Amino acid sequence: MAIANTTRRVPEPKPLIDALQAMLGDRCSVNPGILDRHGHDESYHETHKPDVVVFPENTEEVAAIMRLARKHGSPVIPFGVGTSLEGHVAAMEGGVSIDMGRMNRVVEVNAEDLDVLVEAGVTRKQLNNYLRDQGLFFPIDPGADATLGGMASTRASGTNAVRYGTMRENVLGLTIVTPDGRIMKTGGRARKSAAGYDLTRLFVGSEGTLGVITEVRLRLYGIPETMAAAVTPFATIADAVNTVIRVIQSAIPVARIELLDEFQMKASNSYSKLDYAEQPTLFIEFHGSEAAVAEQVELVKAIAADYGGGEFRWSVKPEERTKLWQARHDAYYAGMSMRPGSKGWPTDVCVPISRLADCIVETRKDIEACGLVAMILGHVGDGNFHTTILVDPNDPAELKRAEDFNDRLVDRALAMGGTCTGEHGIGFGKIAFLEREHGEAVGLMRLIKQTLDPENRMNPGKIFRS
Amino acid sequence: MAIANTTRRVPEPKPLIDALQAMLGDRCSVNPGILDRHGHDESYHETHKPDVVVFPENTEEVAAIMRLARKHGSPVIPFGVGTSLEGHVAAMEGGVSIDMGRMNRVVEVNAEDLDVLVEAGVTRKQLNNYLRDQGLFFPIDPGADATLGGMASTRASGTNAVRYGTMRENVLGLTIVTPDGRIMKTGGRARKSAAGYDLTRLFVGSEGTLGVITEVRLRLYGIPETMAAAVTPFATIADAVNTVIRVIQSAIPVARIELLDEFQMKASNSYSKLDYAEQPTLFIEFHGSEAAVAEQVELVKAIAADYGGGEFRWSVKPEERTKLWQARHDAYYAGMSMRPGSKGWPTDVCVPISRLADCIVETRKDIEACGLVAMILGHVGDGNFHTTILVDPNDPAELKRAEDFNDRLVDRALAMGGTCTGEHGIGFGKIAFLEREHGEAVGLMRLIKQTLDPENRMNPGKIFRS
Repeated sequence: MAIANTTRRVPEPKPLIDALQAMLGDRCSVNPGILDRHGHDESYHETHKPDVVVFPENTEEVAAIMRLARKHGSPVIPFGVGTSLEGHVAAMEGGVSIDMGRMNRVVEVNAEDLDVLVEAGVTRKQLNNYLRDQGLFFPIDPGADATLGGMASTRASGTNAVRYGTMRENVLGLTIVTPDGRIMKTGGRARKSAAGYDLTRLFVGSEGTLGVITEVRLRLYGIPETMAAAVTPFATIADAVNTVIRVIQSAIPVARIELLDEFQMKASNSYSKLDYAEQPTLFIEFHGSEAAVAEQVELVKAIAADYGGGEFRWSVKPEERTKLWQARHDAYYAGMSMRPGSKGWPTDVCVPISRLADCIVETRKDIEACGLVAMILGHVGDGNFHTTILVDPNDPAELKRAEDFNDRLVDRALAMGGTCTGEHGIGFGKIAFLEREHGEAVGLMRLIKQTLDPENRMNPGKIFRS
Repeated sequence: MAIANTTRRVPEPKPLIDALQAMLGDRCSVNPGILDRHGHDESYHETHKPDVVVFPENTEEVAAIMRLARKHGSPVIPFGVGTSLEGHVAAMEGGVSIDMGRMNRVVEVNAEDLDVLVEAGVTRKQLNNYLRDQGLFFPIDPGADATLGGMASTRASGTNAVRYGTMRENVLGLTIVTPDGRIMKTGGRARKSAAGYDLTRLFVGSEGTLGVITEVRLRLYGIPETMAAAVTPFATIADAVNTVIRVIQSAIPVARIELLDEFQMKASNSYSKLDYAEQPTLFIEFHGSEAAVAEQVELVKAIAADYGGGEFRWSVKPEERTKLWQARHDAYYAGMSMRPGSKGWPTDVCVPISRLADCIVETRKDIEACGLVAMILGHVGDGNFHTTILVDPNDPAELKRAEDFNDRLVDRALAMGGTCTGEHGIGFGKIAFLEREHGEAVGLMRLIKQTLDPENRMNPGKIFRS
């Protein structure tokens, strides 16, 4: 490939920084704290600082920044709020970090058509607060209050995907700025179209390596008439997972169905001040009409009973449900709190649902055999689960054990027909796994990258090795 | 663009034909009838015959054919059963038509995971017959008994898309053969993945212009406990469409909701020997548990009553439902039977649901004003509708009137935020409309085409002008 090696940096970024400052004034920063904050995400991955951070306010400014970056041969890294988990925002080769935080307007809500156009820096909670009075919501919920541009870029999903799909199914169109600074629109407002190549889906999940997403058009949903959440414990993790498998195979349209193992429950009880049993547990949510929810609840209860499931503890009031899901979302921080000074190393395999119990049980055994401290939790309705390995970042031997464990986990998932990443993406943490999973098709992906970004300036070192 | 002009043909196809015959024996044909049958689809578009038709039996043979075609500089056109509607299979520049008809094996059913792997030549009816005993079905139903490879290639949808999505949402992965004869796999069996670019979605809807699809992995569904279909007439087309709009905006999960205008009902009564009122009519189908269907039916009846809808005539038994939907699927032929010697010119716009009544009412007026004979019908739950214009293929003035009408229809839909094609695709019939709809983004599509098929040998003259 005709792209530069990993040690490339802009030899002298000052002329570019000067030009950006002339254009943007104080919306262009080289403050060391700001550079540092834009050099890493929430994961254990090391920091790679950009040379400069800019804060554009509209698509035209992004295009102008891209043209300047091109002129100076500089890498460009789009930045949302930095909640990714595979080092996606790290400036591996320096360059310009484009912070989308000021592009946070909800541009247009079409309530009658259940669609919305937002700037890429709008966060999912901001959008849902904005929509609530209209009886609408956007369901994709990766836990973190990520930006919708970032969620599109990583093909995010999360707890509601079992019912509502992922960003792949819920992005209707995009405004993108190409590496040479042109503005393009993909997709549209029609619910379906057979007009040409699906550029929207090409950019969803491309992790900022093909261009900058500046606007996202999303599909919305009416807030269901009834929403109820329940927590129910099981004697073994296999019982909990087998309940999930039966629920999914029975096509019961649960809105969320999440697993937390006994170690995660202990951590969450402590961190989120809850009093649930410290056993493998399912968090389940039901959406629909009153009658539909009642029917779903009965079916799920009967299946859970077959696997020895305990009492269903209900959260129906909005504030109770919010507290419950906040605890679920805080599971990652809860885990880390169990071992002060540790960093969380989140794994992310996803397997066909019929293999999920095997995969999780084998993974639990592996954790114990290799002496790591790790919790298992996940979006089990999709076949997707995480282990949060608590690693001491200053202990190379432990880091190596975690790496080897993750390696075995990915091989286990691939052998079962699964994927190395259900929702976190490749970033720079999973490049080797992408090759292992997709083989020769990665060559086709690289060919597309080379064509759309021939100078390899868009988030270099992510998805592919530079 | 560095691609040849439209008059390019392989100057001397004989050496290639000889090589193909040496490899495939009687599975390689230059029989004039077979060449003719592979030069056109079901539309009014003119025939462009290939030089030779081959009938491979597996992916490796397709790869070998592709390598030979490359060596001889020949175009290649994948062919399913030829039920496309925008000239997709026509051999604009001659070359090799690859008939996938012998690649018709269901390779693997994973009932527990609700997925199936089929060869590209399996048709949707064949698949559903195969699956029935396992209580499973594949819902995407474009009417014609198309191959699943063809349906993936055109991003097909049809009557069930309002509930189950289109081929975009239901293809999990593909086996493809690249223009230089390499075999690649895209996607996988996991329900979601964030591993790299979405090559599956890039090939779905690419109309054979990037490579040959030889296998398709699809998502399956359990056959619903209860299925019931109803037919209900309205006084005006606006009343019928406003009923649909309310049903969709209320998020009632109807499985199908189809409009047939009074002219189409007259044609279908006559052709399919039915006795329905010759008024604007909705065909609606409900899927779910008994309780869920009962709830949906009550909600839809109440909405229809608000718009003066007539009696619901029910088809619940499987054979009655089959007859009903066969009549719906035969609507295109029913239309043509009303004017012997005519050809059907099917239009295919799709608009945001809130604009559907306006778009259909204005279109009906336009039909009357310009003196064409045309029926309106469609998958109105998606905002997608067709007019079948009955044209005399030997009357250039009438063809011009139809062309101008379609031109106005597309402009009307685009002005409403819609698309020029909801499900038929671009082929060679809608190339100008693609440019009108997507503007500069078509340049990005062309760039991808040039990169993946640098010699422009894959179905040349489709989606883009050669």
